[in-house]
Amino acid sequence: MEEKPNEVHYGLEGVYFTDSKISKVDGINGRLYYRGYAIEDIAKYSSFEETCYLLLYGRLPKKEELDSFSKAMAAERDLPDFIMDMISKLSGREKQMHILSAALSALSAFDPETEDQSPGANMRKSIRLISKLSSIVAAIGSAALGNGYTKPSKDLSHAENFLYMLAGKKPDAGKARMLDKMLMLHAEHSSNASTFACLVSASTLSDIYLSVVAGISALKGPLHGGADENALAMLHEIGNPGNTEEYIEQALAGKKKIMGFGHRVYKTYDPRARIIKESLMEIMNSSDEDVKNVTSIALRAEKLMIDKLGKTHGIWPNVDFFSGPVYEYLGIPSGLFTPLFAASRIPGWCAHIMEYWQNNKLLRPLENYTGEIGLKFVKIEDR
Amino acid sequence: MEEKPNEVHYGLEGVYFTDSKISKVDGINGRLYYRGYAIEDIAKYSSFEETCYLLLYGRLPKKEELDSFSKAMAAERDLPDFIMDMISKLSGREKQMHILSAALSALSAFDPETEDQSPGANMRKSIRLISKLSSIVAAIGSAALGNGYTKPSKDLSHAENFLYMLAGKKPDAGKARMLDKMLMLHAEHSSNASTFACLVSASTLSDIYLSVVAGISALKGPLHGGADENALAMLHEIGNPGNTEEYIEQALAGKKKIMGFGHRVYKTYDPRARIIKESLMEIMNSSDEDVKNVTSIALRAEKLMIDKLGKTHGIWPNVDFFSGPVYEYLGIPSGLFTPLFAASRIPGWCAHIMEYWQNNKLLRPLENYTGEIGLKFVKIEDR
Repeated sequence: MEEKPNEVHYGLEGVYFTDSKISKVDGINGRLYYRGYAIEDIAKYSSFEETCYLLLYGRLPKKEELDSFSKAMAAERDLPDFIMDMISKLSGREKQMHILSAALSALSAFDPETEDQSPGANMRKSIRLISKLSSIVAAIGSAALGNGYTKPSKDLSHAENFLYMLAGKKPDAGKARMLDKMLMLHAEHSSNASTFACLVSASTLSDIYLSVVAGISALKGPLHGGADENALAMLHEIGNPGNTEEYIEQALAGKKKIMGFGHRVYKTYDPRARIIKESLMEIMNSSDEDVKNVTSIALRAEKLMIDKLGKTHGIWPNVDFFSGPVYEYLGIPSGLFTPLFAASRIPGWCAHIMEYWQNNKLLRPLENYTGEIGLKFVKIEDR
Repeated sequence: MEEKPNEVHYGLEGVYFTDSKISKVDGINGRLYYRGYAIEDIAKYSSFEETCYLLLYGRLPKKEELDSFSKAMAAERDLPDFIMDMISKLSGREKQMHILSAALSALSAFDPETEDQSPGANMRKSIRLISKLSSIVAAIGSAALGNGYTKPSKDLSHAENFLYMLAGKKPDAGKARMLDKMLMLHAEHSSNASTFACLVSASTLSDIYLSVVAGISALKGPLHGGADENALAMLHEIGNPGNTEEYIEQALAGKKKIMGFGHRVYKTYDPRARIIKESLMEIMNSSDEDVKNVTSIALRAEKLMIDKLGKTHGIWPNVDFFSGPVYEYLGIPSGLFTPLFAASRIPGWCAHIMEYWQNNKLLRPLENYTGEIGLKFVKIEDR
């Protein structure tokens, strides 16, 4: 019937699907803005709490607003016993993202506001989600480390509380600030695959909990959330800074994909990687010899890759390449990197979902059918 | 920098994102084909088990193949105690889709093949998912009805076992066949929002469990999976066949949306609705007076809507309009309609995920940024 072949946008690459005022990724110039503010300024002057406020409300808070927002976040840190019990029973199976998905899905059954779709309720649920997701991830990590469950503290900052629940003891200020910066750098990145998954689900008018679950599901894939874990595994495989050159050259000769380089949008240095590199410099000044070794490999590999691929092929380090050594320095086990990514990205997910609902339209693109039509159904005895 | 405004495809309407050989929805002529076979033939001659085989393998099975496939499905019906326990503890909260999402996420932690991405393992997991999802939904329904947990039976067909687990007793053959037909009619529908959500998640190379969880998340929204429940609620609100005309006319005059009519793709009578209408005729011959009343309202409303909107505005009954009375006749509580939709659509989801992975490409479209850029970050004390 149709004569003209359909134009197919594989991967939806280059297709615009909505308007948004949340963040701008300028892939050509290597710039990233949250609500108009440069990521460099945010990393330097802001906190995760303030960044959440900025993303959710669209503007920077005044001092009193930030204080009451931070208090509201801290007040939401507790988890129902059922969720704690579930996490503890499922731990040991090394399926952290599945446990996270299960815990968050179950959590929604405890929230009397789950089905309340008013903007006010969705803002309250967003704050709740940001806060409780962090507690869930810390609890999953703590169970995996065999540390048992540490109840959240309401007197700590969001980043401090995460490290406190993970390790069972209060972190030092430098490490908490380093995590705070990582959380801010990962808080939002326009319509990456996980945010897009949230919006596909949200566009059916599903609730914010299950929409976030869809984001977690997409984040789990190694092409998205798993890259930092794989990049760190590679650094460990290299083992010694002196092996870096040989390893990278062999990998490139064998056309092996090197994790943490290249990006669908950035065709230059990822601005977040540049900021994380500053944390690597801090780590190099620390006394943690094991992490310094891995960090030093990362810095050598980066230099080499820029010479070999960056300037000639537009393949530059992305945010995932340097994250692993930082997380390792902070005592975060590698199986927890992707759940922690979820706990960082959740303000971006919630901001996008709420924005999309202001002018909702069902996301339902088409498949180009290339199969047969009108086959005769032969009864089973005659096949 | 960019001068030309971006072309934005809101809702991705009309945009093709991939090739597929699984199903063809011909919205102009009101035809639907699974793997080339007309839905009318499938409903008449096939079974849910055979339809699953067809969707997953791309061809109809021979007798021996179907027998061994059906046995493999039946063998997978059991659920881990942990999952049963979870369902029972979360029931009573009337959050069936959240419980389903939690149960399926947790289930993945018990499968030693969760991370095995080989085609063989994904086919085994698909069969497992189809089978266990049905048990989970039946268990959720049974808990909601206060019937307690009935262990699955391996001697029954897939449809029979569902009704058996739900009600705790073996169903009569006519009802089992009616459910079997409903399962087949809902098994697949190209890239609707839930299937698309599965693919967005799968495109990051996430596993098949969490990709299906993303589908469940999208299906939960009233614009997608919830329509049959809302359509049935409207029939109950009308209450008496004699009130139908007045209700519909008032609703239309008030521009109220009438659930179960109109479709993004079908611009004529939904072929599935036509087949379900045959089941309504069967119900009208039964002795179940309550359901006959609702069915009779549905038939009257349909006739009226076709006269008022179908012929003039292209708004025709869709699959959701007639489903409610059938489910009610089968003893399925209305809170279970959407979970049951998931248990019906799962073969389509799995078939699409496996097909997409044969030629995977990350699904990552773009947002058109309409916000500001380069705002000055004023320190908090100066705001």
